Amino acid sequence: MTIVTVIGDGQLARMMQTEAIELGIHLRLLAGAKDSSAAQVIPDTVIGDYTNIYDLKAVAEGVVTFDHEHVPTQHLHTLIDDGVAVHPGPDALVHAQDKLVMRTKLREIGAPVPEFMAVESAEQAVQFWDTVDGQVCLKATRGGYDGHGVWFPGSRQECESLVVKLLGEGVPLMAERKVAFTRELSAMVARTPSGQTRTWSVIESIQRDGICVEAIAPAQGLSDKLGTYCQELATRIACELGVTGVMAVELFELNDDTGHPTVSVNELAMRPHNTGHWTQDGCLTSQFEQHLRAVADLPLGSVDRTAPVTVMANVLGGETDPEMPMGQRVAEVMRRHPQAIIHLYGKSWRAGRKIGHVNVRGHDVNSAREIAQAAAHFLVTARWR
Amino acid sequence: MTIVTVIGDGQLARMMQTEAIELGIHLRLLAGAKDSSAAQVIPDTVIGDYTNIYDLKAVAEGVVTFDHEHVPTQHLHTLIDDGVAVHPGPDALVHAQDKLVMRTKLREIGAPVPEFMAVESAEQAVQFWDTVDGQVCLKATRGGYDGHGVWFPGSRQECESLVVKLLGEGVPLMAERKVAFTRELSAMVARTPSGQTRTWSVIESIQRDGICVEAIAPAQGLSDKLGTYCQELATRIACELGVTGVMAVELFELNDDTGHPTVSVNELAMRPHNTGHWTQDGCLTSQFEQHLRAVADLPLGSVDRTAPVTVMANVLGGETDPEMPMGQRVAEVMRRHPQAIIHLYGKSWRAGRKIGHVNVRGHDVNSAREIAQAAAHFLVTARWR
Repeated sequence: MTIVTVIGDGQLARMMQTEAIELGIHLRLLAGAKDSSAAQVIPDTVIGDYTNIYDLKAVAEGVVTFDHEHVPTQHLHTLIDDGVAVHPGPDALVHAQDKLVMRTKLREIGAPVPEFMAVESAEQAVQFWDTVDGQVCLKATRGGYDGHGVWFPGSRQECESLVVKLLGEGVPLMAERKVAFTRELSAMVARTPSGQTRTWSVIESIQRDGICVEAIAPAQGLSDKLGTYCQELATRIACELGVTGVMAVELFELNDDTGHPTVSVNELAMRPHNTGHWTQDGCLTSQFEQHLRAVADLPLGSVDRTAPVTVMANVLGGETDPEMPMGQRVAEVMRRHPQAIIHLYGKSWRAGRKIGHVNVRGHDVNSAREIAQAAAHFLVTARWR
Repeated sequence: MTIVTVIGDGQLARMMQTEAIELGIHLRLLAGAKDSSAAQVIPDTVIGDYTNIYDLKAVAEGVVTFDHEHVPTQHLHTLIDDGVAVHPGPDALVHAQDKLVMRTKLREIGAPVPEFMAVESAEQAVQFWDTVDGQVCLKATRGGYDGHGVWFPGSRQECESLVVKLLGEGVPLMAERKVAFTRELSAMVARTPSGQTRTWSVIESIQRDGICVEAIAPAQGLSDKLGTYCQELATRIACELGVTGVMAVELFELNDDTGHPTVSVNELAMRPHNTGHWTQDGCLTSQFEQHLRAVADLPLGSVDRTAPVTVMANVLGGETDPEMPMGQRVAEVMRRHPQAIIHLYGKSWRAGRKIGHVNVRGHDVNSAREIAQAAAHFLVTARWR
């Protein structure tokens, strides 16, 4: 049986197991805790620290892949030297770990990115401020997620003092031009070590406070031409960076100087991604199955859609946890909205925490959104909006 | 989180886990072996003996359900007395354990069954032989499966000596009129403790040596009237017997005295069933998800089909196990027949063993069958037919 070792114990690893079971792939997990989302459903779980090379060596078997991008690349090189297959490999993965490396590489291959520069002093930051007329976005080059590690200074002075403070704390920084985007898109691609690639339909992702709350597949009103461009861009990035497995290319849609829609790359994620959860029910091959196929170098599956539109709404922990047990909330949603397909991560409540998502397939995007939002809202509030 | 305890460690329990992960249901397993098909993918596995009440008591939590029908009903009554929910309950389950009890009950509620009688002596058997003009099928009332426990004596004398031998060995026997059927059908139904029911499309099952090798969904050429009759019959049996969970009603299709197609009940299975594997890819709600919903008393999901036709072919261990590793065989099938959706059970090779199945969706039944058969054949022979 094929063995795939997954580093990281969140819902992405959990949902890989759903597909691994049917594919007959044996998953091994390196988890931080026995009761984590993925460890709950993967018997071959080893508890350990993904920053510790000895823990990694002890668990690595077959193909190594990831639930997150935080494993130090030097450890991955060590595993490869030991003869282990690692997908995506460290030379690709570094572009998902370090935003400055990513931006530099993307500019080099001609992918559209905002103006940017490394920031090693307050002087550089204020100089950049002047260059871009104060449209500055400061980013930690490493360690950010879900809106953390991103700052939008409101004035030249705030920019300066923020940079002094962050550099003083040892945060590695870069600055880029703030993009006046009209909406956010995501283009997902899978690539095998043999070089086969497949891209799903480009979707619109709706964010709140830096967290994805909804995905609309396919992105409505996106021209075929721009959609195809996004898919080809994702494929080119995957090939140029040598990505193996699934990659999400998060994009800003904006208007160019002539007022026409165009895109600029925001972030890369080299693993299944929140903006791809809709594929579980909206595509013939889900991102989790495709990721396993890709890292195991199996032929990729069809990315045809199963419905004209699929909407995914995240189930995010509310201010408080309602008294009604989750099982009863699930039953209420199934009764009222049989079209709502519920996916839960086995996580307990915490305000703002991603504890599940709901997919709704349909013909009409508005009614699908309404149902997905209502279902996701009920699952964390036990109240109908 | 809802807890469902599954008794039995085969592929049916394994495929329940696929659905449980996404539904956020925690499965606990009573398994015979740590490396069994289901124990490979369910962390909360207890090793024990399902015929031992202490093992059952130790594992039972939440709702108890089954991968097979062999748990003694008195033990289930004990669990219920202890306050555990058991679905299907022992008063229903006995009809899937004891063919004589089943036949008697079905006749009582007016369901179509062949003539039958209990056989407690060779005299009774030969008397029955004369009554039905030698069209005799002898069955062990308990413990048969996949063609085991069924005999077709070729002569009056063979019938007599076979009965003497089997009764001597302590096999509890019944006799029934051998049905001159034209094909075999299966009508599957789900029923919740609250009384909600849903039936999938009636399918044709193709058997070889008493083992299901293929399922064609829906059964081709079946009149709407007879199809609806089969679905209503399955629902009526589920209600009359108090079945909770999923039940397969295996049917013979035959011609009545006037030459019109009709059906007669062959067997009942009170759990997900081989003839329902096609629902994983051919229906909005698979039999495994529906079974979990039913036993947890959640609203049942849609049984709408996702394609005009879905064909399932079993992957049955061949005479020998080919040298090509299974991972490579899977890759070859995916490359040649991307429409073939492979499901593997994590089982090692044994001649004739069910180690997986392949589902193929399509518009044309003949090409779907061809692909499903070719894929299943390659997976166990590493040769294209």
